Amino acid sequence: MSEKAQKAYDEMVKRVKQINLLQSCGSLLGWDERTYMPRNGAGNRAEQQSLLAGIAHEQFTSPQINDLLCQVEGSDLVSDSLSPAAVNTREIRRAYDKKIKIPKELVEEISKTITLAEQAWVEARAKSEFPMFAPYLSKMIDLKRREAEAMGDKKEADDALLDDCEPGGNVENIKKIFADLRKDLIPLVEAIAHSSRKPDISILRRNYPVECQEIFCKAAATAMGFDFNGGRLDVTAHAFCTTIGTGDVRILTNYNPNNLAQALFGVLHEAGHGLYEQGLDQQYFGLPMADSVSLGIHESQSRMWENIIGRSRSFWECFFPRARQIFWEALNGVKLDDFYFAVNDVRPSFIRVTADEATYNLHILLRFEIEHAIFNNDLKTNDIPGVWNEKFEEYLGIRPPDDARGCLQDVHWGAGLVGYFPTYTLGNLYSAQFFAKAKADLGNLDSQFARGEFKPFLGWLRQNIHCHGRRYNASDLVKKVTGQPLNHSYLIDYLKTKYSALYGI
Amino acid sequence: MSEKAQKAYDEMVKRVKQINLLQSCGSLLGWDERTYMPRNGAGNRAEQQSLLAGIAHEQFTSPQINDLLCQVEGSDLVSDSLSPAAVNTREIRRAYDKKIKIPKELVEEISKTITLAEQAWVEARAKSEFPMFAPYLSKMIDLKRREAEAMGDKKEADDALLDDCEPGGNVENIKKIFADLRKDLIPLVEAIAHSSRKPDISILRRNYPVECQEIFCKAAATAMGFDFNGGRLDVTAHAFCTTIGTGDVRILTNYNPNNLAQALFGVLHEAGHGLYEQGLDQQYFGLPMADSVSLGIHESQSRMWENIIGRSRSFWECFFPRARQIFWEALNGVKLDDFYFAVNDVRPSFIRVTADEATYNLHILLRFEIEHAIFNNDLKTNDIPGVWNEKFEEYLGIRPPDDARGCLQDVHWGAGLVGYFPTYTLGNLYSAQFFAKAKADLGNLDSQFARGEFKPFLGWLRQNIHCHGRRYNASDLVKKVTGQPLNHSYLIDYLKTKYSALYGI
Repeated sequence: MSEKAQKAYDEMVKRVKQINLLQSCGSLLGWDERTYMPRNGAGNRAEQQSLLAGIAHEQFTSPQINDLLCQVEGSDLVSDSLSPAAVNTREIRRAYDKKIKIPKELVEEISKTITLAEQAWVEARAKSEFPMFAPYLSKMIDLKRREAEAMGDKKEADDALLDDCEPGGNVENIKKIFADLRKDLIPLVEAIAHSSRKPDISILRRNYPVECQEIFCKAAATAMGFDFNGGRLDVTAHAFCTTIGTGDVRILTNYNPNNLAQALFGVLHEAGHGLYEQGLDQQYFGLPMADSVSLGIHESQSRMWENIIGRSRSFWECFFPRARQIFWEALNGVKLDDFYFAVNDVRPSFIRVTADEATYNLHILLRFEIEHAIFNNDLKTNDIPGVWNEKFEEYLGIRPPDDARGCLQDVHWGAGLVGYFPTYTLGNLYSAQFFAKAKADLGNLDSQFARGEFKPFLGWLRQNIHCHGRRYNASDLVKKVTGQPLNHSYLIDYLKTKYSALYGI
Repeated sequence: MSEKAQKAYDEMVKRVKQINLLQSCGSLLGWDERTYMPRNGAGNRAEQQSLLAGIAHEQFTSPQINDLLCQVEGSDLVSDSLSPAAVNTREIRRAYDKKIKIPKELVEEISKTITLAEQAWVEARAKSEFPMFAPYLSKMIDLKRREAEAMGDKKEADDALLDDCEPGGNVENIKKIFADLRKDLIPLVEAIAHSSRKPDISILRRNYPVECQEIFCKAAATAMGFDFNGGRLDVTAHAFCTTIGTGDVRILTNYNPNNLAQALFGVLHEAGHGLYEQGLDQQYFGLPMADSVSLGIHESQSRMWENIIGRSRSFWECFFPRARQIFWEALNGVKLDDFYFAVNDVRPSFIRVTADEATYNLHILLRFEIEHAIFNNDLKTNDIPGVWNEKFEEYLGIRPPDDARGCLQDVHWGAGLVGYFPTYTLGNLYSAQFFAKAKADLGNLDSQFARGEFKPFLGWLRQNIHCHGRRYNASDLVKKVTGQPLNHSYLIDYLKTKYSALYGI
């Protein structure tokens, strides 16, 4: 009996690895599309991608995968629910059941609508005219609602979609923790905004030659522990990180010769994602045991390296002297403390992607609340701009002058990404809670970072988070690592400590 | 009946295009492997490649392809043997029958032996010890002989392998034409070697900054007609050209800052391949009607652009003034005629890949004769070095000092490429014969080239050669385009005219 289960398990593992390998070919196609592909290759690339996705989908949803799962489930092989075999089986079942439930016609209609909605969004944003985008958004919400219905019997209508991004998460919990966060964050941001102390951010807008930025970014990523023998750094329009396979994790950024912060913190962020990918247990490559927990946990890694570490004074104690060497013209005569303050400029602004680490979360809270309201029919699509601007003023103290700088700034909803926004702030919350625990475990991290020693900290991440793959879902992982459930006070404490010193509040 | 055939044809076309699309994903994997892939990604890349190749092979050799072919063959749809449908059907049948005849075990054994033989070859060449490579070579020859036997009932034992590279070609014809070529070429090369006139090749070995070379190479390729909106130029170890799909043809070269000729003529050569690929009829992409005729015809395009055009005086009348602008330091005071002579340096040398356009063919004749003799059991593997050196001295007047510079210099045989070498010289023969006809059709090409006008000539290639895809096999295409069968005298006339003027012979 056990031998039969083992055989079925081995066969399932072989198939799932192969499907993942096929999808990883698609990852390279995607990387190339956003880096080197010549313009006229776009049509062919779309066909290549849809072919690979089609084969992978067909193979994964074949009844044989279900047969194999059934043979393994309930066998001795998976009796220890935290063993690799049990984890792989559980998560393959999870993904299989999700995939199989959504009708093919719905998948295709969503896919077509995404293309149209994205095109409409580009034009609507350029003209700052929400009504041009509204019908596509309404249609997309309807389709996603049908998708959520097909998938599950969750409590809230958008739970099933959140579950795609944050497996095991639920909207009710998020609502609660986000409400707590909002209550503490708004007064903090307000106090900072009213402080008379302001950093001189012109320091970061000087002449930063792109070649020098690239050298500096690579050196920083290497110091953090990113392995360039098993990775790359390339240029693209919007920074991202993608895994092509074991030994091949690629980060991408975008340089601006008159803005040091853009590429640099972009690279620290993406290298944080990359370190997670490089830290997954490679023996299970292609299986859930070597997959990331959730978008939120992935984001916790990138935010931790970008913000908690990359914008810390100790990090710059180590790197500022190096920065002064390579950017000698721009940083001539600049003091460490002024530089440190400049990279920690906090002020209300309209655009999420360039927002600082404190106000960023208010951008997310607002989106989550609106998305949840639309999805539950508490808000009509046409009423989004008004609600957006009202909430924005309430949370950040400023009112978007137009929809391009308001509710039209992000493509997510048009691209069918519902349940995605909250994972950004979940990432920030996780990162602060994890970091507090790492600090308790490892002693004086600040002095380690100031010496350029990141190995013990990376080792801690690998041992406590990376190596588990999807063994635990996000909330269980947080409990296991930190000893308690997710708590917004870690992020608030971190922000308060840092910014009360900087802004004298 | 005809409707049924049409339906079967459409289905076959759909499947074959899809298989080709899958293989084109493999082309991108290969391109990336040789350009940007991080070192540690090699293992994963091999797995990705073998997965895609496996799926493509399985799909192409499925009995359904045969069923569809049978429904189309003999129908009205293919009654005009030169119609696209007939050509596609004929060539898919051809490929199918070949693939289906070779036992899977043999394919796998050849594949494994290639890996081992290539490793042995690298070591043997480094140590210049042929006996280290000999057993692998013997085994490979045996396996390829079995492959040839499995494939067909051809006249000569190596006909079936030649047919892989040069469909429709046969060894007997090649033997004859190569013998004619040898008779005329040896005295010509000898006369050049004994001429007292020698170019000053140090001109090409000066300081040629890589960035400037890249600009110049791109400008030259663009002038020829290579479309960079549907293509790229990248850096790799060994120059090549690869097609990722419609609108995506990539050429690759290798720069040496102290050698202008290496990258430049490499780019002209690869852009010649690229122009062929870009000139194929894109509506048939993925089908034989948009595939190249043979390796020899492909090589005729690259050699024509590299040598007959790229090393012509008229080409440099146009490009030398530009070269002097960009390589102002290296070419300061250099005269056009001295530069022209330097890029046409002819002298016997040991290494094929760096040989000039005249002696190159003697390197090939020697390889073809040895390959044919081994394959027909007229020569034992262990006797290769002796025969190689003897023939080399007879043909080129110099004797290789060791096997690294003799019979160990090329990987082809170890990589299972038998029947491949002759296509290099076939390419040269085709190119001279095609070019003579183009000249007759288009009038004074020299003055067009001197003005930088390559459009009429490229148009001629597209209309006479590129647009046909695989409608004709190589020898029929030569007859159709030039009005007569392949004749070695065009190449000899071209070489004699050019080099008697340069060397005063």
